[in-house]
Amino acid sequence: MKTRAAVAWKAGQPLTIEEVEVGGPRAGEVLVEIRATGICHTDYYTLSGADPEGIFPAILGHEGAGVVVDVGPDVKSLNKDDHVIPLYTPECRQCKFCLSQKTNLCQAIRSTQGRGLMPDATSRFSIAGKPVFHYMGTSTFSNYIVVPEIALARIREDAPFDKVCYIGCGVTTGVGAVIFTARVEAGANVVVFGLGGIGLNVIQAARMVGANRIIGVDINPAREAMARQFGMTHFVNPKAVDNVVDHIIALTDGGADYSFECIGNVTTMRQSLECCHKGWGQSIIIGVAAGGEEISTRPFQLVTGRVWKGSAFGGARGRTDVPKIVDWYMDGKLNIDDLITHRLTLDQINQGFDLMKRGESIRSVVIY
Amino acid sequence: MKTRAAVAWKAGQPLTIEEVEVGGPRAGEVLVEIRATGICHTDYYTLSGADPEGIFPAILGHEGAGVVVDVGPDVKSLNKDDHVIPLYTPECRQCKFCLSQKTNLCQAIRSTQGRGLMPDATSRFSIAGKPVFHYMGTSTFSNYIVVPEIALARIREDAPFDKVCYIGCGVTTGVGAVIFTARVEAGANVVVFGLGGIGLNVIQAARMVGANRIIGVDINPAREAMARQFGMTHFVNPKAVDNVVDHIIALTDGGADYSFECIGNVTTMRQSLECCHKGWGQSIIIGVAAGGEEISTRPFQLVTGRVWKGSAFGGARGRTDVPKIVDWYMDGKLNIDDLITHRLTLDQINQGFDLMKRGESIRSVVIY
Repeated sequence: MKTRAAVAWKAGQPLTIEEVEVGGPRAGEVLVEIRATGICHTDYYTLSGADPEGIFPAILGHEGAGVVVDVGPDVKSLNKDDHVIPLYTPECRQCKFCLSQKTNLCQAIRSTQGRGLMPDATSRFSIAGKPVFHYMGTSTFSNYIVVPEIALARIREDAPFDKVCYIGCGVTTGVGAVIFTARVEAGANVVVFGLGGIGLNVIQAARMVGANRIIGVDINPAREAMARQFGMTHFVNPKAVDNVVDHIIALTDGGADYSFECIGNVTTMRQSLECCHKGWGQSIIIGVAAGGEEISTRPFQLVTGRVWKGSAFGGARGRTDVPKIVDWYMDGKLNIDDLITHRLTLDQINQGFDLMKRGESIRSVVIY
Repeated sequence: MKTRAAVAWKAGQPLTIEEVEVGGPRAGEVLVEIRATGICHTDYYTLSGADPEGIFPAILGHEGAGVVVDVGPDVKSLNKDDHVIPLYTPECRQCKFCLSQKTNLCQAIRSTQGRGLMPDATSRFSIAGKPVFHYMGTSTFSNYIVVPEIALARIREDAPFDKVCYIGCGVTTGVGAVIFTARVEAGANVVVFGLGGIGLNVIQAARMVGANRIIGVDINPAREAMARQFGMTHFVNPKAVDNVVDHIIALTDGGADYSFECIGNVTTMRQSLECCHKGWGQSIIIGVAAGGEEISTRPFQLVTGRVWKGSAFGGARGRTDVPKIVDWYMDGKLNIDDLITHRLTLDQINQGFDLMKRGESIRSVVIY
């Protein structure tokens, strides 16, 4: 069949809207009509050419929601008309990683996914007979996609696609880091470095689980108001204090119980560890640093009880946990509506990248 | 009263055996007759002058066992003739740290202990009317010491002082890191960097809890035999392999579940993290690096699920957990006897330091 899709032909160039051929679902695969997709910084990272693993031509996009149109042979857990969110981190429930019960980083299809291919090492996308690569196993910048069954979370049918698509990446990354990776408990003091989309989701999850002080750190004072709306109790502008680590330690009577780095800057990653409370404070790295950059600290920080860890896709097991986050949104525990600042058509998708680059949007969503 | 003690008058000079005046126990304090004490690398670190917090004259020693001789007012949990191990990490059960139930780093008397004083900011030791400082709140190189009640673990009376004194530091540091900090589970793969006294205790604790592969890493092949006796299943000499991290990852089908750094070298600390299994491997830093040195890694290591943490005094709450470790020794679950390679009188104490510096001892014990 044919689909409309935004195609990335080459690094550094705008996407172009094309008619793309989509092959039908093979064994274990599902054809999904994407109804809405967010535009995430990771898409821009790859499109810009900075991603060393970026391959072209490809159909980007990894933050979508849609409806099952058809299922291939052997698909057991999904049926036509099911509402789904595609998962760039799948959940096979059978690999060593899933069975460990210690991580969400299912590796069942990692090698083909990393090469822009389906698990059988072919692409379902083509233009004029030439293959176009998948991206992050999802390619939500196409109206129709084929994905493995294990890479789809079934969600409730009353959830609006143009909001819950954001749960496909940003919401889950922030909310999950608090709830699944750190397991923040009521009464804890939380520090959040970076008040963009991820940071705001960390903040609202910390509020949801009953955190005490929720301290936001950002060099942009314009971000204070919205962060307070999402639950931030104290704002720290590093430019306005002598030493941000000392300042946070004073504000929290000894340091953060949990600290989240949502920027991708190795300096704030160090601050995120060193502002933690002696004895138990945990620093959770969410942001992705530029290739080759390193984090450092004195080992004394660890020996005196601080913990340095990371979080990918919020530590969420996609098929198990994403439907829970959809419920939390539908129950009014999480605010997604105010984070979606711009709504675009597929033809306007490059405007979404421009808004992101200029820092004018929190999240732009393309509605098919 | 008078006691015999080895006094450190000055950094870099041998200890001298002196007759020292010991003040009686004040409120909340206990007078203990030390029956045996180990000589630990930390004593040498301070004696050498490398410890920036070292103060002189002082009575070193922090790895002892003995008997209560007298108790001061308000002491409730101990009586004359109780057998005890002094704790350089006390357990008051009332401070923020103890009550957090997340750390063993009780801070109740930290500031005075760090200044070589009792909690009332005075010293109980003097020579010719001039005060001599305490050390690590213990000073087990004195036959009689005064310590706060919260810094004494009561132990069973059938435990031999000349063995269980080692539980006052080295045994607990290694065994506790496995059992209390990492909580290693049966079937886990464990990697141990450094096969000295701490590393051997990590190994035997890993065996005790049913670890699967126990991989020891040391550049000294002479250490292999004893490590195997304590439970090591595989030996890696970094000099004999191309890349120690890749080698360990291959040996463990993906990496260590738990890795312990027992050297204090920032290069092996990095290896200890990077040899961990993606998704869940934990690197536990036990060794103490030289002042000012830093550890580094790519943050990708954390975001893909590895955890970097540390352990001090094995994560053990002294009064609660040290008696358990004594039980494990008395039950034959832990081997301490073979780790105590030399027995000395107090007059021979400087020989113990020489043996340690030359790497000829695992542990020397002074018997009063």
